Amino acid sequence: MDTITVNLGDRSYPIFIGSGLLDGSDILKESTPAEQLLLVTNETISPLYLERVEAAFADRKPRSLILPDGEQYKTLEGFGRIIDELIEARFHRDACILALGGGVIGDLAGFAAASYQRGIDFVQLPTTLLAQVDSSVGGKTAVNHPQAKNMIGAFHQPIAVLADTNTLATLPPRELAAGLAEVIKYGLIQDLDFFCWLEEQLPALLGQDPEALRYAIRRCCEIKAEIVAQDEHEHGRRALLNFGHTFGHAIEALGGYGKWLHGEAVAIGMQMAADTSAALGLIDSADAERIGVLLEQAGLPTSASELAGDNILNRMRLDKKAGSHGMRVILLDRLGSAAVRPAPDDQVLRSAIGRHVTAGQ
Amino acid sequence: MDTITVNLGDRSYPIFIGSGLLDGSDILKESTPAEQLLLVTNETISPLYLERVEAAFADRKPRSLILPDGEQYKTLEGFGRIIDELIEARFHRDACILALGGGVIGDLAGFAAASYQRGIDFVQLPTTLLAQVDSSVGGKTAVNHPQAKNMIGAFHQPIAVLADTNTLATLPPRELAAGLAEVIKYGLIQDLDFFCWLEEQLPALLGQDPEALRYAIRRCCEIKAEIVAQDEHEHGRRALLNFGHTFGHAIEALGGYGKWLHGEAVAIGMQMAADTSAALGLIDSADAERIGVLLEQAGLPTSASELAGDNILNRMRLDKKAGSHGMRVILLDRLGSAAVRPAPDDQVLRSAIGRHVTAGQ
Repeated sequence: MDTITVNLGDRSYPIFIGSGLLDGSDILKESTPAEQLLLVTNETISPLYLERVEAAFADRKPRSLILPDGEQYKTLEGFGRIIDELIEARFHRDACILALGGGVIGDLAGFAAASYQRGIDFVQLPTTLLAQVDSSVGGKTAVNHPQAKNMIGAFHQPIAVLADTNTLATLPPRELAAGLAEVIKYGLIQDLDFFCWLEEQLPALLGQDPEALRYAIRRCCEIKAEIVAQDEHEHGRRALLNFGHTFGHAIEALGGYGKWLHGEAVAIGMQMAADTSAALGLIDSADAERIGVLLEQAGLPTSASELAGDNILNRMRLDKKAGSHGMRVILLDRLGSAAVRPAPDDQVLRSAIGRHVTAGQ
Repeated sequence: MDTITVNLGDRSYPIFIGSGLLDGSDILKESTPAEQLLLVTNETISPLYLERVEAAFADRKPRSLILPDGEQYKTLEGFGRIIDELIEARFHRDACILALGGGVIGDLAGFAAASYQRGIDFVQLPTTLLAQVDSSVGGKTAVNHPQAKNMIGAFHQPIAVLADTNTLATLPPRELAAGLAEVIKYGLIQDLDFFCWLEEQLPALLGQDPEALRYAIRRCCEIKAEIVAQDEHEHGRRALLNFGHTFGHAIEALGGYGKWLHGEAVAIGMQMAADTSAALGLIDSADAERIGVLLEQAGLPTSASELAGDNILNRMRLDKKAGSHGMRVILLDRLGSAAVRPAPDDQVLRSAIGRHVTAGQ
């Protein structure tokens, strides 16, 4: 088992990565001292893992709430259902929520924990690759607005993250690939060696090799923990973690949440950001192509053929990364290094987007 | 004009107290550097003060949102309306909300500011006595759940508070009295001299004497700023500010928000807490009576005649001040000093409550 610490003073917390952590491990039992526990999960995950987590906490009689599965349920209404459950249970300020599932469950349960009685504890039990490498770490919680993703939320750190790598065995291949998009992101923005390792080890990762997966998850969590410790509230460097996301959020929203998985939209967005970087001469076009090859080998899309480029650009202006001083995008300086930059001319963006869409809509 | 600072490190902010602050003062204009401004107010306040605040920021073309007036609108739905407005305006992370109104507007707009894009700036422009002495200071924001008050919210400090004492001239007498309940609270929990001053100066305060009002507001803000600086997130001493509120919140909820003003419910609650303190021998019953006299002279209720005592007690168990280790209440040690204590036996509470209700419902 690997342990990584997110260093945030009195809000520091551990990330545990290993196999079987949900199977009644001491680490699970000791992850929270709270007497009042609410397990939040979804309809897909509950038949697989809910019972064993409930069993681990049986002496504390945890309550469970099972939500529908999907990004389209990451709404203020879904948030309200968790709050209703906490109220119904008459839970106090020292209660704890356990978020058992992927990024949607973590974001919803985390925002409910941030807001119930102005903040209670929560523990992340991520069951998807994407959640284990990215969304469960760092304290970003949110729900979507019909107009744009993650517009309503809070920075609220969990008190522990337990990534049980065994859960990846039940992950559909499409979801595994979506997680690999975020894994590749870490290589691109921060660690060329890791990017090269991914090029080599992709077959092992796609084949669910436990050692390869464990190493990839650890490396991603190390990078994320370091960045979050430096810039918890995203006033600076943390924005680099949004590489590909400004494009990707627009693609997700235009598809209607549910069409693209978050990681798939991010893959398309990273390709668009790489092409923009190449168009500006920041990286070689050969590097942009190399990125596309890895994404496609991972089983990820690199184009959104049915979305019109202008729609994507309009949506991007709504994204949180935009500021009063104009839209900003995260571009690559080279493979393994990214920077936040003012958005280039619309023609440059339209061209980079246009290479990966057809303007039919 | 008085200026008080709430010392919270890099989140410190000033409270300005004076007459005419909303009339295009430099202090108002300079309260926020944001280019994108949303003024949130209600139907009662907007005809009185909105135009002058809009005029002060005319060069930045502020947007305004006018909500219905009343505690019954302090809901997740009202919160959603502010978020919708921010999205509609395509406001960025460096936008600022100005909350122009009483405690309901401040709580709603503050929670929206806390949650929009995981947190933007806001400025409090309190127009009621209650908001000027209490709710606009200290960063507690929240909306109500149908089952209990302030259950969904955040700690999110404003960047400035401007209390224009001229706004109190248009305050209905019932609202002025409701504010005096919180004013009296500060004397009771922390400052016997101030309590005695209030006994003397009550006629001047009820007569809207500007100097008396300014002094009372300043003293309350000083006490609150000191307590909040010591214990921002209410792990300890800040809980004393909830004196009377555990009873009061139950009374408000049972009345259906809208029947009792918050300050009125707090007045009844403070009387019940004082009687509980007397029943336990912590204070003399003469002191409890002295409190009742002041509350009644201020035009405040000290009994909720149509609510059954057992209902109040059941509701209190839902209150945020309850913890896994049992309900706690804030009681007086003497006039001018309060402490958090485990709730006494139900009979003691029932008796103290019962003196101020009839069990008809």
